[in-house]
Amino acid sequence: MKKIGIIGGGGYTAGELIRILQYHPQVEISYVHSNSQQGKTISDVHEDLIGETELVFTGDLHFEVDAIFLCMGHGQSATFVEKNDIPASVAIIDLSRDYRLSESYVYGLPELNKTAIRQSNRIANCGCFATAVQLGLLPLAFAKKLNQPVHIHAITGSTGAGQKPAPTTHFSWRNNNISIYKAFTHQHLDEIKRSLHQLQPDASLELNFLPLRGDFPRGIYASLYTQTQQSLEELYELYEDYYADHPFTIVTRKNPYLKQVVNTNKALIHLARHEDKVLIISMIDNLVKGASGQAVQNMNLVFGWEETLGLQLKALAF
Amino acid sequence: MKKIGIIGGGGYTAGELIRILQYHPQVEISYVHSNSQQGKTISDVHEDLIGETELVFTGDLHFEVDAIFLCMGHGQSATFVEKNDIPASVAIIDLSRDYRLSESYVYGLPELNKTAIRQSNRIANCGCFATAVQLGLLPLAFAKKLNQPVHIHAITGSTGAGQKPAPTTHFSWRNNNISIYKAFTHQHLDEIKRSLHQLQPDASLELNFLPLRGDFPRGIYASLYTQTQQSLEELYELYEDYYADHPFTIVTRKNPYLKQVVNTNKALIHLARHEDKVLIISMIDNLVKGASGQAVQNMNLVFGWEETLGLQLKALAF
Amino acid sequence: MKKIGIIGGGGYTAGELIRILQYHPQVEISYVHSNSQQGKTISDVHEDLIGETELVFTGDLHFEVDAIFLCMGHGQSATFVEKNDIPASVAIIDLSRDYRLSESYVYGLPELNKTAIRQSNRIANCGCFATAVQLGLLPLAFAKKLNQPVHIHAITGSTGAGQKPAPTTHFSWRNNNISIYKAFTHQHLDEIKRSLHQLQPDASLELNFLPLRGDFPRGIYASLYTQTQQSLEELYELYEDYYADHPFTIVTRKNPYLKQVVNTNKALIHLARHEDKVLIISMIDNLVKGASGQAVQNMNLVFGWEETLGLQLKALAF
Amino acid sequence: MKKIGIIGGGGYTAGELIRILQYHPQVEISYVHSNSQQGKTISDVHEDLIGETELVFTGDLHFEVDAIFLCMGHGQSATFVEKNDIPASVAIIDLSRDYRLSESYVYGLPELNKTAIRQSNRIANCGCFATAVQLGLLPLAFAKKLNQPVHIHAITGSTGAGQKPAPTTHFSWRNNNISIYKAFTHQHLDEIKRSLHQLQPDASLELNFLPLRGDFPRGIYASLYTQTQQSLEELYELYEDYYADHPFTIVTRKNPYLKQVVNTNKALIHLARHEDKVLIISMIDNLVKGASGQAVQNMNLVFGWEETLGLQLKALAF
Repeated sequence: MKKIGIIGGGGYTAGELIRILQYHPQVEISYVHSNSQQGKTISDVHEDLIGETELVFTGDLHFEVDAIFLCMGHGQSATFVEKNDIPASVAIIDLSRDYRLSESYVYGLPELNKTAIRQSNRIANCGCFATAVQLGLLPLAFAKKLNQPVHIHAITGSTGAGQKPAPTTHFSWRNNNISIYKAFTHQHLDEIKRSLHQLQPDASLELNFLPLRGDFPRGIYASLYTQTQQSLEELYELYEDYYADHPFTIVTRKNPYLKQVVNTNKALIHLARHEDKVLIISMIDNLVKGASGQAVQNMNLVFGWEETLGLQLKALAF
Repeated sequence: MKKIGIIGGGGYTAGELIRILQYHPQVEISYVHSNSQQGKTISDVHEDLIGETELVFTGDLHFEVDAIFLCMGHGQSATFVEKNDIPASVAIIDLSRDYRLSESYVYGLPELNKTAIRQSNRIANCGCFATAVQLGLLPLAFAKKLNQPVHIHAITGSTGAGQKPAPTTHFSWRNNNISIYKAFTHQHLDEIKRSLHQLQPDASLELNFLPLRGDFPRGIYASLYTQTQQSLEELYELYEDYYADHPFTIVTRKNPYLKQVVNTNKALIHLARHEDKVLIISMIDNLVKGASGQAVQNMNLVFGWEETLGLQLKALAF
Repeated sequence: MKKIGIIGGGGYTAGELIRILQYHPQVEISYVHSNSQQGKTISDVHEDLIGETELVFTGDLHFEVDAIFLCMGHGQSATFVEKNDIPASVAIIDLSRDYRLSESYVYGLPELNKTAIRQSNRIANCGCFATAVQLGLLPLAFAKKLNQPVHIHAITGSTGAGQKPAPTTHFSWRNNNISIYKAFTHQHLDEIKRSLHQLQPDASLELNFLPLRGDFPRGIYASLYTQTQQSLEELYELYEDYYADHPFTIVTRKNPYLKQVVNTNKALIHLARHEDKVLIISMIDNLVKGASGQAVQNMNLVFGWEETLGLQLKALAF
Repeated sequence: MKKIGIIGGGGYTAGELIRILQYHPQVEISYVHSNSQQGKTISDVHEDLIGETELVFTGDLHFEVDAIFLCMGHGQSATFVEKNDIPASVAIIDLSRDYRLSESYVYGLPELNKTAIRQSNRIANCGCFATAVQLGLLPLAFAKKLNQPVHIHAITGSTGAGQKPAPTTHFSWRNNNISIYKAFTHQHLDEIKRSLHQLQPDASLELNFLPLRGDFPRGIYASLYTQTQQSLEELYELYEDYYADHPFTIVTRKNPYLKQVVNTNKALIHLARHEDKVLIISMIDNLVKGASGQAVQNMNLVFGWEETLGLQLKALAF
């Protein structure tokens, strides 16, 4: 059994990580660190865990573990890593944005970097929108066919906005509501572009990206289209080949819907063609494949385990 | 045209009041007062009002109006009334709890006190749960038949908890969720009991009241039952007679559902009988009949107008 | 008072029409015709109307009215008009698609055809998606600036799919779910293109339109973007000028959200600029401005009344 | 590995069973039988299962399995068992109501009948409301303290109404709505009363039960109260003792909320006291602990396995 430490244990991604890791057959959670919650039980904060764990948040830190997950806010991971003398043997999986564009961390999207992840123990876990968008585009870039502007709309659940209350996460406001934010300028564009460029150095990087706030808690539903000359059948072959060795990314020929992936680590990809364009539907659970599930998938790779270990999660379905 | 001032204009009930009063044929809003929002336009805060009003929140106060509505938090109305020298000619309609048990204000539930409201200009607007529960019980108390314990279960929308964010109004938490609060001890019980006692001095005041937080923004759905010897037909006659002159409270013989009243000033009452018990369903929109719509209804009575003036609101229905 | 007949009275748009017309100051509903519901009361079917109307669905038809609204399914309006000898003096407002591309009916979008609507009494009411999309693009076409492909993404509420149960309107499925349908091929594209061509004969008609099924009952939220050389200020002036005489279409400089228009006849339009593109947000309530409210607006114009008569509806807001 | 057959594979409970059993470490699904769906793949119908199973619905029936689960509609299980010659060695777990009051099947509520379930292979799986209500009352009956009328309100998710569309499961209707049905007369009362009588032959069986339709897909939230003389501490001890050996039923001293149990096989029980009454909150996921999860729990007991095998499900939480 590998020993795990979780840093920044009070937020949504840490909670989701605990939910997954507690039943992972090869790890045990050594501690969950939180400055703000220390002394409370885990289930005082992540209340659905009542009856499943007796763990208590700690304010004491140590690195006698095999891996740590950094679940703090953006900016705080880098500070933490600088301030603490983390042994090189301890794997670090950072769920923040801090190292995603860094050379010293492997960008943690297994569908792009599986081999590199297996050989590293410094992983910058991929962002949620970035996961959904990249899974929709990677095969095209891999085939050097991403040559035209891409039009991307993606609707996200409210958990993407985190735990801290805001006017746009107030139930009275968000129920049955839709709105847009950061149109064309979302901060995940940088990491997306770097990945596309990695696969196709001359890829078109005109990504017109409209993120929307959806009136549901979990999930990202992305629709993307671009011009391409390949037939639908060629495109399906390309995508199916690309994802053949990636157990969580499923290419489906049937028009999918978001709840097929909610509460799972799966991504669903669907293609359609209209005149000279291909439409790509890509969807994930933002807290699982878009955050904590993918972090566990990365850990499995780092430790040389089966990628799906501990991640065979029952879908919500309804 | 009567002139209206609204005090405490930034909250949910003030917004709802403006939505209704702006199209009321006999009034004009002179000012909307708010310490926290002064200088902003009304539609900066109540954003759906964009295009409908050019009003700006003011920090200046005056009483050269025919009526003021107090929409501040509980406790602040009494302070406001004490600190300001409000002319006796200015009608005061207070939406807080502060004067509901006072002798100097008429308790503003038209289905109980219509004549007194018409003769007064100091009105303590009835609470939201209190409206739903009383409308379910008043005819029984009027007939002196409220002699046994009452069992009350009422689910409220999130707007009942106000605008200020709280863990229990966070969308990620409240969506598809249900919980209970203040079981048996909700603060509206006092005003309910006083009204029942007013109609039936020896009424049973054992009211077992379970309030629940529903996963919808608007509405209160209450189910009540108690033992009674009257037949269903006698009960329907009693309720239909009692509400015959109350245009907003409708007795229906068909099992109703909450969205029949959402966005209206209506209350729906339905009765059923099982063995020795009567089941009473009572439902309102908590922000309309449970707050601002009822405040306008009270104003109409105070000014001697038709009770329904400005309150013929299109139901949401879906 | 003008007399009104409603044909096909059992569906969503007829219900919404009755909700609005019952409080319209210049009309009375003479009859509501329905083959399937005849003999039932209106509130047996449109249950929120309980206590507001004593009308009964009729199976008898006559044309001793001033206007009829056709609320039947697509295809049935044309059949009805052919089979019945409707006097030329009776205004016909058809809510189906049947006459939208016809020369003999005026296309009922007041923001495009107000003068023609005023001079006609044969109106083909504009479709719901078509309303949202056109309101986003008409000023550009009017200024002859619609010269580049347009990218359109629009999310609709479930009431757009009508009353008949379907797998995609089952609550267990649709709650917290998102999906796409008729990508690039939605049937409203034809009417949209005709309108754009009317204003700008050489307009780009490459409209890439992705309609999505949202997990809310009411509303359409559309985001559109296209290349343009005008500055944001020039664009705002263009839109504000274009809509200056259209009381229901509001141009706002603040990022809006869908619930600002729910349960109203308003459309909200917002603009933003990114590099060489303009982003246009356009939103309506699909049952009101997208159907029955717009039908009443058209009727007001046909009868020479104030456009807003009977349409000053309180927003839901929450 | 034990071999499993599922009969009536197209409905909600069968889908949920497949979701759970596919990752159960000790079983393999031999076949999923469905007359209506035969020839389709499992994921054509239970679409979230795409990528997880290649199984196809079969119309052929055989009993060379270790257990069959009957997931047909109420009434059809008994017909099936009568018409087919099922070997005595094949365990039958019936999810319908058909055998719940029968002497020949063990009533499948492990918290009541764990020993008997272990010794049988004919199990009538407990109903969903019946599970929530009984888990709230069993300890009181066990202690012979259920001597006064019980007042029960329980709100259920839409999946409790099954897959077949109905007016009350239409999204446009059910979203943000609440209604009551079968007040005082729900068909689960019989099985509840039999269990209470089993533990306390002189128990009060006056159960005033109001079931409500909630506007969420999954879960049952039940509140129950009755008069009792025991202190809160005595009651907690009683409940904690009773459930000490039942890993899925958790007694919590903190006011819980429904989403703590959604997508899990857990039940949460909370107690409070007010004057002479105890309030009991009991909640489950109606499709898991209220149906398919409990069916697997029963199977585990029948086969002599650890009760929690295959049932350590990640909570949805949000």
